[in-house]
Amino acid sequence: MKILIVYAHPEPTSLTRQLVDVTAETLSAAGHTVVHSDLYGMKWKAVYDADDFPVRDNPERLSFIMESGHAYASGHQTPDVIAEQQKLLAADAVILQFPMWWFGVPAILKGWIERVYAFGFGYGYQNGSNQFRFGEGILKGKRALVNVQAGGPAADYGPRGINGPLDQLLFPLTHGALFYPGMDVLPTHAVYGAGHVSTAEEVEAIKAAWRVRLAGLFTDKPIPFRSQNGGDFPDRHTMADHVAPGQTGLVAHVADLGDA
Amino acid sequence: MKILIVYAHPEPTSLTRQLVDVTAETLSAAGHTVVHSDLYGMKWKAVYDADDFPVRDNPERLSFIMESGHAYASGHQTPDVIAEQQKLLAADAVILQFPMWWFGVPAILKGWIERVYAFGFGYGYQNGSNQFRFGEGILKGKRALVNVQAGGPAADYGPRGINGPLDQLLFPLTHGALFYPGMDVLPTHAVYGAGHVSTAEEVEAIKAAWRVRLAGLFTDKPIPFRSQNGGDFPDRHTMADHVAPGQTGLVAHVADLGDA
Repeated sequence: MKILIVYAHPEPTSLTRQLVDVTAETLSAAGHTVVHSDLYGMKWKAVYDADDFPVRDNPERLSFIMESGHAYASGHQTPDVIAEQQKLLAADAVILQFPMWWFGVPAILKGWIERVYAFGFGYGYQNGSNQFRFGEGILKGKRALVNVQAGGPAADYGPRGINGPLDQLLFPLTHGALFYPGMDVLPTHAVYGAGHVSTAEEVEAIKAAWRVRLAGLFTDKPIPFRSQNGGDFPDRHTMADHVAPGQTGLVAHVADLGDA
Repeated sequence: MKILIVYAHPEPTSLTRQLVDVTAETLSAAGHTVVHSDLYGMKWKAVYDADDFPVRDNPERLSFIMESGHAYASGHQTPDVIAEQQKLLAADAVILQFPMWWFGVPAILKGWIERVYAFGFGYGYQNGSNQFRFGEGILKGKRALVNVQAGGPAADYGPRGINGPLDQLLFPLTHGALFYPGMDVLPTHAVYGAGHVSTAEEVEAIKAAWRVRLAGLFTDKPIPFRSQNGGDFPDRHTMADHVAPGQTGLVAHVADLGDA
């Protein structure tokens, strides 16, 4: 299988980068082909701006959606964006690895999503509407796995932790950016207390836990996010009354095991 | 009063920028002093990297926390970061205005947070620990107000909407980046269907609604986030059992009105 690793840390000896090395070694050893998007190493342009649209549909006024759709459809995207889109299309699985910065992805990774997810590609798929999203889209059939290193302890990210639960903090990424264009998103693999790892034994234990997750990349069960077109959102906007009755908020988006 | 507007859209005629103009005009007319951080106009460096630390504590290995703390304490931060910190310290209120991109802030704004919130400033306040955070910190006493333009309709961001509730999607910003260093965060002001605003009447109605929120900048009640040191988190990590009993997740972080 082909696996794309997208990662965001400039220090080769950081825990994130050590775990990227584990990813590459483990998956290569298992016979997979590993492709890298080393965002810092590539000096990825993080800011989505007019330079993304060298041939403008409307030179007078910058509408991102309009220019993105035009650039994508007419073949005028920048080469770096085209390359990342092709990597995504070729991949069977996508792994994101990054440190948790201010309760989300580093800016360079956010900018990767913004620029690579063109209108017609990441959203507005097929017909420019929202007909295909959240479970259906250009990346349908691929798997996604997030590995995040958080400086704080696990308790801070627990169900009643002071930061909020990690899964809910990363919902905009897992649900909003990975499930949106159709990927099956595996439960996030978090390393907590990443700033306080000191001994070689601790690092080895962290690597071992990550190898277990890598071994399940194509077999672990994805997060049961509710798809737009699977019946839970009859009008494509709001959950039907019979779905997660009485629930609101992010928790309602994950089907109970009992639902199956 | 002094108000800092931080905004992230490069197109002067965009809805976001039109609302920034409303902010500046309305608050100036009310006698306030308005300071701008036009992130696109400033060509703000979005990527947090080694260039942020021109004088390294450890030239061999880049630890962001260590180098950030060193640069902040020793006066070796970059001038752009120092300028933004001074703007924040001088402000009585901070207003963030931006389009919703992939269910969060644009990368350029995320990078503003990452770079400006140095160790010792945005976190690790006073003693390098987490003793002062979530309600206490260097920005305590200031007010924060978020204005976001979302392309999708309000239903998509409702309590049972397909995107997830807007307040929960932006929790990493409001709770994690604004409340964290001590600001009182007002309820977010969202404009929905921002991509489909077409008539001058619609724009005027949107501007009028925003002026109402600006009028309440110093009088509206903040979101009742639970502070770390107010008694709800006795060990600074996990909510006490008697707080929001039976609740988990982001909803538990907002005190019921009945609690007061």
